[in-house]
Amino acid sequence: MRRTRFDRAACPIARTTDLIGDWWTPILLRNALFGQRRFEEFQRSLGVPRASLARRLARLVDDGLLERHLYQRHPPRHEYRLTAKGRAFFDVLAAMWRWGEDWLWPESTVPVRLTDRETGRTVRPVVVDESTGERIDARRLRPSFRRTTRRASAAERRAQ
Amino acid sequence: MRRTRFDRAACPIARTTDLIGDWWTPILLRNALFGQRRFEEFQRSLGVPRASLARRLARLVDDGLLERHLYQRHPPRHEYRLTAKGRAFFDVLAAMWRWGEDWLWPESTVPVRLTDRETGRTVRPVVVDESTGERIDARRLRPSFRRTTRRASAAERRAQ
Repeated sequence: MRRTRFDRAACPIARTTDLIGDWWTPILLRNALFGQRRFEEFQRSLGVPRASLARRLARLVDDGLLERHLYQRHPPRHEYRLTAKGRAFFDVLAAMWRWGEDWLWPESTVPVRLTDRETGRTVRPVVVDESTGERIDARRLRPSFRRTTRRASAAERRAQ
Repeated sequence: MRRTRFDRAACPIARTTDLIGDWWTPILLRNALFGQRRFEEFQRSLGVPRASLARRLARLVDDGLLERHLYQRHPPRHEYRLTAKGRAFFDVLAAMWRWGEDWLWPESTVPVRLTDRETGRTVRPVVVDESTGERIDARRLRPSFRRTTRRASAAERRAQ
């Protein structure tokens, strides 16, 4: 049964959820950001069935996060490279990383850190308000809708 | 069939994915952050079957993102309040919001903005390096593992 779609929702969280609601997608993108490009590399490191991996990679190509490049002609071999859109998705993974670090392990037991390749410094991502540089207090926020010319469908209203 | 679990993975992205891999979870948390607390409110706005909603809320209570509070005794009625852990999850949703805004609509057509309740100012979340305040270049990063005393299982190694 096809799950509920959010890809036409008015809310940016809902649309992004439609993409990452497939639980392998963030893990695939994580591996791509850390340098994997080839089907066999993804397959080996994730241990996911080949047909599912092919389907997931194809979805990310369709959605413009990965591009398929021929890297060898005889026999033809392709690799998957992040586009600008895919690379920008790092920010979502970085926010997940930080929240996971802060809340999903007993204090000081997180077994892995993000470090700068050159300096070895630990990097801790944080989400701030772009114009003030301050942490955002969600209680001060509300979503404000712009007028649109067409009426939202019932499914869209739900996902709003 | 039970999906692959990531909740014991070494990677903070993998653990967080285990939680939000259920595509309704970010939407539920979004609604909680924007003020919903009662089963009926969630049910009405999401249009999700009552049994699935109950299961999802129970998972978020088990995982410590929501707390169940009795708000009326006769008859007994409960509401779901965000914990500090649940409130902190706003940062993940904020990063999703920003990426969605930037990449999932044709330019300047995003129908909704995050605004400050008091000032009406548009708030744009951005992910930065906590110690420098600068955007993070994912290509400069690598995950670095700490020594641990016990061996990872095969499933954990995959999810790493």
